[in-house]
Amino acid sequence: MLIDCGEATQISLRKNKIKFQKINQIFISHLHGDHYLGLPGLVSTFNLFGRTKPLDIFGPSELKAIIELHFQVSGSVLNYKINFHPIETDSKKLIFENKILSVYSIPLKHRIKTFGFVFEEKQKPRHIKSEMIKFYSIPHYEIKSIRNGKDYVDEEGNIILNKKLTNPADPSYKFAYCSDTAYFPEILEWIKDADLLFHEATFMDKHTELAQKTLHSTTMQAADIAKQSNAKQLIIGHFSSRYIVSQELVDECKTIFNNTIEAYDGLRVIVNG
Amino acid sequence: MLIDCGEATQISLRKNKIKFQKINQIFISHLHGDHYLGLPGLVSTFNLFGRTKPLDIFGPSELKAIIELHFQVSGSVLNYKINFHPIETDSKKLIFENKILSVYSIPLKHRIKTFGFVFEEKQKPRHIKSEMIKFYSIPHYEIKSIRNGKDYVDEEGNIILNKKLTNPADPSYKFAYCSDTAYFPEILEWIKDADLLFHEATFMDKHTELAQKTLHSTTMQAADIAKQSNAKQLIIGHFSSRYIVSQELVDECKTIFNNTIEAYDGLRVIVNG
Repeated sequence: MLIDCGEATQISLRKNKIKFQKINQIFISHLHGDHYLGLPGLVSTFNLFGRTKPLDIFGPSELKAIIELHFQVSGSVLNYKINFHPIETDSKKLIFENKILSVYSIPLKHRIKTFGFVFEEKQKPRHIKSEMIKFYSIPHYEIKSIRNGKDYVDEEGNIILNKKLTNPADPSYKFAYCSDTAYFPEILEWIKDADLLFHEATFMDKHTELAQKTLHSTTMQAADIAKQSNAKQLIIGHFSSRYIVSQELVDECKTIFNNTIEAYDGLRVIVNG
Repeated sequence: MLIDCGEATQISLRKNKIKFQKINQIFISHLHGDHYLGLPGLVSTFNLFGRTKPLDIFGPSELKAIIELHFQVSGSVLNYKINFHPIETDSKKLIFENKILSVYSIPLKHRIKTFGFVFEEKQKPRHIKSEMIKFYSIPHYEIKSIRNGKDYVDEEGNIILNKKLTNPADPSYKFAYCSDTAYFPEILEWIKDADLLFHEATFMDKHTELAQKTLHSTTMQAADIAKQSNAKQLIIGHFSSRYIVSQELVDECKTIFNNTIEAYDGLRVIVNG
């Protein structure tokens, strides 16, 4: 899954050895150039590389016209299908799910229509205690429902509680992406308890007025959102180019929310609570 | 002047320390992504950097709609004016000139409407022999016309020939850019005697059929155009990614046209005949 696609995203993907064909869903937050201008080229490159499987694109409704205009003027025909899903919501809304993940869009507060995205892992199966399965001679076809938490009832009607047969499932993690946005506490409920929160922090605290004017956030506002929403870790990014030392923005966040790191090109984060 | 603007052109400009504000004319050959997808971002960056002077953009007429759609969806207003000049021509046509240069568009032969560009330096002023100006006591206000080749007539009506008063002007150079295009000998007359010719060479000779099918050129075809048009130097580029060693394409050209070099990111060429 790819979230936003600024110009030269293709170069970043190559540099970070991410296989193009592994991307099946693309989520575009809003139609400022630094968030979408790499998309027409990327979908063209998919085609050039022989893609045949469909691609799901989620974003503001006008994005469809942009992509269609690109293909119209280039006289190209795609060998795969783009399923375009326009986002329209003023609350948290399920826009995609597969076996392991649900993806929600949420409204943000910016100069144009902008959406955040919340990625929530579904409940995972519990871990079978194989020695207990053996002990109770539980048939194979029962395992799936036991993994999902069901108790076992044997032929004589005895109930064997699930917690006797299984160990707890691994936790399900949650990632929330909020960019670009002004300070917008309405999102707290939608992103609460995220294991990882990306929140933009375009400005330092001393430029709060500028943040208000441009509908961006400051470090302190991003950290406040992380703290109030009970996030476990905060990644900040989208820094104004006026700041030379990005560590200063991180340090400012840490005065409110200690577990803050900086987004940089190629950063990999393992979400483990 | 910038010719074509693929994705990530901004990154190349920065890497090569080319000042954004020095670019005042942009020429777009055609609307395949690798030739224009960097343009919306570049014109936005100009704005972000505080540009106020107008920008001239020359290209296929649909380009205007693409740029306008970008600004429409982003809700941005430019602080400078874009003068868009749609190109429509089936022959060589003057599209821009300033004091030192005339720029012409020419039609190429590709899958969609595509234009080449010819940059011709105007006649330069001749070099004044200052000792002769002194000798004939020629007044200052006559110098400009003498530089431009006029003879001098003194107060008594004597004609002093220009070649007595000046040395020849520096030569005027000519650069032709032809990409993307199939082999298209119609251009020979329009680009003739170029000091520098960029001609695409997407394929090697063994893939001539593929070149015909995709309306691209082979090395041999590019070299043939260079030779027949009496170019002084040929730059080839736009190589298919199937070729690992680009020197092989250059070597193939050299069998027909020896003064061939390869286009690579950051190449600087001094045109001096």
